[in-house]
Amino acid sequence: MKKTYLLAPGPTPVPDASLLAMARPMIHHRTPQFSKTFAETAELLKYAFQTENDVLILASSGTGAMESSITNLFSPGDEVIVVNGGKFGERWGQISETYGLKVHWIKVEWGQAVDPAVIEGLLNDNPSIKGVLTQASETSTTASHPIREIAALTKDRDCLLIVDGITAVGVVDLPMDEIGIDVLVSGSQKAFMLPPGLAFIALSAKAWGFSEYATLPNYYFNLAKERKNLKKDTTAYTPAVSLINGLKEALLLIKEEGIENTHARHDRLARATRAAATALGLKLLAPDNPSSAATGIFVPEGVDGAGIVKYLRDEMGVTIAGGQDHLKGKIVRLAHLGYVGTFDVIIAISAFEMALKKFGHDVELGKGVAAAQEVLLEAYK
Amino acid sequence: MKKTYLLAPGPTPVPDASLLAMARPMIHHRTPQFSKTFAETAELLKYAFQTENDVLILASSGTGAMESSITNLFSPGDEVIVVNGGKFGERWGQISETYGLKVHWIKVEWGQAVDPAVIEGLLNDNPSIKGVLTQASETSTTASHPIREIAALTKDRDCLLIVDGITAVGVVDLPMDEIGIDVLVSGSQKAFMLPPGLAFIALSAKAWGFSEYATLPNYYFNLAKERKNLKKDTTAYTPAVSLINGLKEALLLIKEEGIENTHARHDRLARATRAAATALGLKLLAPDNPSSAATGIFVPEGVDGAGIVKYLRDEMGVTIAGGQDHLKGKIVRLAHLGYVGTFDVIIAISAFEMALKKFGHDVELGKGVAAAQEVLLEAYK
Repeated sequence: MKKTYLLAPGPTPVPDASLLAMARPMIHHRTPQFSKTFAETAELLKYAFQTENDVLILASSGTGAMESSITNLFSPGDEVIVVNGGKFGERWGQISETYGLKVHWIKVEWGQAVDPAVIEGLLNDNPSIKGVLTQASETSTTASHPIREIAALTKDRDCLLIVDGITAVGVVDLPMDEIGIDVLVSGSQKAFMLPPGLAFIALSAKAWGFSEYATLPNYYFNLAKERKNLKKDTTAYTPAVSLINGLKEALLLIKEEGIENTHARHDRLARATRAAATALGLKLLAPDNPSSAATGIFVPEGVDGAGIVKYLRDEMGVTIAGGQDHLKGKIVRLAHLGYVGTFDVIIAISAFEMALKKFGHDVELGKGVAAAQEVLLEAYK
Repeated sequence: MKKTYLLAPGPTPVPDASLLAMARPMIHHRTPQFSKTFAETAELLKYAFQTENDVLILASSGTGAMESSITNLFSPGDEVIVVNGGKFGERWGQISETYGLKVHWIKVEWGQAVDPAVIEGLLNDNPSIKGVLTQASETSTTASHPIREIAALTKDRDCLLIVDGITAVGVVDLPMDEIGIDVLVSGSQKAFMLPPGLAFIALSAKAWGFSEYATLPNYYFNLAKERKNLKKDTTAYTPAVSLINGLKEALLLIKEEGIENTHARHDRLARATRAAATALGLKLLAPDNPSSAATGIFVPEGVDGAGIVKYLRDEMGVTIAGGQDHLKGKIVRLAHLGYVGTFDVIIAISAFEMALKKFGHDVELGKGVAAAQEVLLEAYK
C-alpha cells in the first residue's frame, strides 16, 4: 500500500473537487446548462490570468496554443526573436521555422536569464522584427526570464511580446495588461491543477490588430473564431466538457485563496526548496533567476540523477523530474506548483535526502528539511 | 429531482467505469506507469478501429484530426474531391481551402448519399486528384455515404480515401485495411463513450507514403512525430492523461461486448428508432442510407422542432439534437450511439411522443414505443 506523490512540473496534483467534477455525468455542450458553466469558467480564468482580455480555452496541450500564437499573428517571412534558454524556448523557434518565419535566435545558457540588452540590440538593428517569443518560466531549466524588462522594449514598437507562461501563470505576478505582454499562453496541467488537455491563450488589443494582417493558415486553432464564440459562451469546436467542469472548480479554489496569496504561496514554497538545497550543500541550476514553479538542483558529483528520479518514483512513490538533454542525470527538478503546500515540499525534500543517502552520498538527514521548515513557518500565525 | 438523459449524437453518455477512471489522482505522463496504460489503450483502440494500422491519439476535438489529415498528406495546390452532404462535409472543404488545396466540391442534398458514379467521373476527368474526403456518417443529417463503393474507386489510383468516421467508428463495420480506407478519423465523445477532448486517426501505408511528400506545414498535429512516439508508448506532446485513463475503461467495455456485437447493437437501436418514427407517421431525413449513430426525423408540419428540443431538455431532462442550417426547427435527431441500449431508445421515443402531444400534434401515445419494442426484443433470448 504505497502512497504516491506527484511533485513534477506538470502534470500536477488535481484537487478532489476537480476530480469529482470531471467524474460528473456528461452533458451536451450546446445547451444553456453548459454555456453557464463555460461563461463562469471563462470569467474566473480572467481573474487567474490577471487580465481584462478574453482568455480563450482550447482543447489541446499548451503546444497547440503556442502554435496558434504563430499561425494567427504572422505571415511567412516575418521576423521574430526567439529566446532559446531551454527545451521550450527551442520549441518556439521550431514552430516559427515550421511556418516559414525568419528566426533571430538568442541562445541562452540553460539556467540563465536572457539579457534584455541583447534583445534591444537585435530590435534596434532589425526594425522589421515583429515578435519576441520567450518563456516567463522555462520549465526545462527552472529559470525565469525578465518579462517586465522585455515588455518595456516591445511596448512602443510595432512588435509583439509573446510569452509562454505555461508554468508561470498562476505562479507569479504576471499582469499582462499592465506589463504590456501581447500574448500569454498557459496550460491546464500546471498551476491550474487539472489533467492535461486544455490550453489557454489571451491576446492584447495590439495582438488582435496583428491577427488581422496575418496570412498564415490555421483552422482548428483559429483564435478570431474562438473569440467570436467565446462572446456567445461557447467554443468554435467541441469543448473538452469534463476538463472544463474540473477547471471551474480549480479556479474557484484560486479565487478563494486570492491570486496574490496563490503567488505568495508559490514564492514561499520555492524559497523553502532553494533553502533546503543550499543547506544540503547542493548547487542550484538557476540561482539568480529561479522560477517559482520548480527548482532545478544539481545532484552531487558522481551521483546518478536519473537513478534518483527512478528510485524516488518506483520505491518511494514520489514523482519528481530529472534533467533533459545535456543535463540528463545531472539535475533533479522538484516542482512546487499547483495544488501544493507546506507538506508537499517537506515530502519532496525528505524523500530527496533519503534517496541521496541510498545512493551513497554523505548527506545529513533532515538538514534540508529544517532549512525548508524555517521558510515554510512564515505561512502560519 | 429531475433525472437527465443524454441522447444527442455527441457528447454521449460516459459509463461509470470511465467516469471513475477520469477521477483518479493524476500521474506523470513520462513514467513506465502511464506508458503501460497508454500502450494497452493504443492496442485496444486498434481493436475498436478494426485495423492493424497504428491509431494515433491526439489531444484535440475531432476537427483537429481532420485538419491533420490535410496538413500531413498534401501540398498547396493539390486537388481533392470533397463530398459535401452536410455540416461536416462542408468542414472538409473549408479546411482544404484554408490550406490552399483545390477543391472539387460534390454537393449532396442533405440526407442523401453521394453517388459514387459522380466521384468516378471526377476522378476520370481529373487524374491529378490526390484525395477524396468524405464522411462515413454525416452527423448533421444522419445519413451515411457508401464508403466501400468509394474505396473501390480510389484503391488502385494514386489517390487517398480520407474518411471522417467520427460517428461511424465503433458504430458500423468499417474495417479500413480490408475496405481500402487510407485515413480514418474519430473522436472520443461518440462511440468511444468519453467526454470530448481526444481525437483518433489511423493511416494506411499508402497514406504514410503520401505524408513523405506533403509540404504543408504542421507542428502540433505532426502525425509522423506522433507515430514515432507511439512506438515508444508515448505521445509527442503532453497527452490528456485523465481522458486516456477513461478511454482504456471504455475500450475494455467494447472488447468485452465484442466489436461485432457493438455494431449489431447500434444497428438494432437505429432500426428500432426508425421503426418508431415510421409507426408515428413521421418522415425520416435519410430513409435510404441511414446512419446507425443517430436518426433524423422530420417533425410534423406546423410543429416547432427547435421548441421540442428545448422542451425535452428543460422540462423532461432529455437532451436530443435538432436540425442545423436550413433544417433548423424542421427535424429532430435522436441519437443511439455509445453507451446506450434498449431503454435509452425507449426513453427517447416515449419522450418525443409526449412532447409532440404537448405541442398539439395528434399523436397516439405508445405507438412509436411499441414499434421500437418489437425490434428491441431481438436482443433477448
